[in-house]
Amino acid sequence: MAESLNNASHQDVTIEGLAKLGTRKAQRILSLMRTIPDFPAKGIKFRDFIPVLNNGDTFSDLIDALVDNLPVPADHIDYVGGLESRGFLIGAPLALKLHKGFVSFRKAGKLPPETLKQTYGLEYGKAAIEIEKGIIPAGSHVLIVDDLIATGGSAQAAQKLIERAGADVAGFEFVVELNGLNGHGKLGDKPYSSLISMPA
Amino acid sequence: MAESLNNASHQDVTIEGLAKLGTRKAQRILSLMRTIPDFPAKGIKFRDFIPVLNNGDTFSDLIDALVDNLPVPADHIDYVGGLESRGFLIGAPLALKLHKGFVSFRKAGKLPPETLKQTYGLEYGKAAIEIEKGIIPAGSHVLIVDDLIATGGSAQAAQKLIERAGADVAGFEFVVELNGLNGHGKLGDKPYSSLISMPA
Repeated sequence: MAESLNNASHQDVTIEGLAKLGTRKAQRILSLMRTIPDFPAKGIKFRDFIPVLNNGDTFSDLIDALVDNLPVPADHIDYVGGLESRGFLIGAPLALKLHKGFVSFRKAGKLPPETLKQTYGLEYGKAAIEIEKGIIPAGSHVLIVDDLIATGGSAQAAQKLIERAGADVAGFEFVVELNGLNGHGKLGDKPYSSLISMPA
Repeated sequence: MAESLNNASHQDVTIEGLAKLGTRKAQRILSLMRTIPDFPAKGIKFRDFIPVLNNGDTFSDLIDALVDNLPVPADHIDYVGGLESRGFLIGAPLALKLHKGFVSFRKAGKLPPETLKQTYGLEYGKAAIEIEKGIIPAGSHVLIVDDLIATGGSAQAAQKLIERAGADVAGFEFVVELNGLNGHGKLGDKPYSSLISMPA
């Protein structure tokens, strides 16, 4: 079902965010990225980074690249926030590596009360995310992490939750940024970075 | 809504799995564990470790404790498998720390095809988990990690998936083990460990 990214033309994919790893490691990560057509809905190309995590070397290289490519210096970050579920897989290791506390942005109904809830539009429907009330101290700075930014709806919802908690977004970091959907337009003037940029 | 574990009698809670951290760090982790009554369903006491992750020091200590308390030596483990979603929050950092590949055990319908699926009973209903076909090489050894073992249904389902893939369970590791539900009885003769043991 999956097709390799090698089917995309080289001009369409940029990996500047992986540059500090060196060409060999960067190409190895890129070779493990997959595209799955019509998932999770008809017409959506699912850009899947999960196989990168399945190998101890490339998993470690990916987290190193996220540390190298932070959108702001690490000492401007108080918490790393990850979006359920794929954002947990990189956000939690990144928080550990940076020695920061981790904040879970979960799908509605998963966290115990009391929560703050924010709805948003998806490429294919609607959804809501929540954080626990009181888990982010007012005035603190949160780096929001996810595997992918498409239209930017979930990242924007996470920003709203942080601001409703009286805290600030330090920046956004993604493994993959999809071109042509103007996702970063939803992030306002906050710093952001991504490791790999490719067509939607 | 939450009550502190300090409300439970000391005889009911054991933290031998945290012993190598020393008393001060172990007690600090224990002090952050919460109990939330009637969540996610009436009559269930939700034992919540999320606040431990919210602090950079205790998050790091928790992952160190999981490394110290592995049920088998690290060189007997080829992959770390985490159960969605709270198992991702500790399984992915543990895999990174051990320099192993990570395998996602996801709720049904989340992974792209083709998958292997296994249903199981919960304390409060039924559920199913899936892995991707082909993601675990036959003959490899997988450590299954989750935040909590209650009746053991999800851990047993993960074991069945690994065995259907032609691989083996190296062992099981949990942050919390609930007493009196005989969860470990579902794990057969596989090695397992937990950091904290407390009443269901």
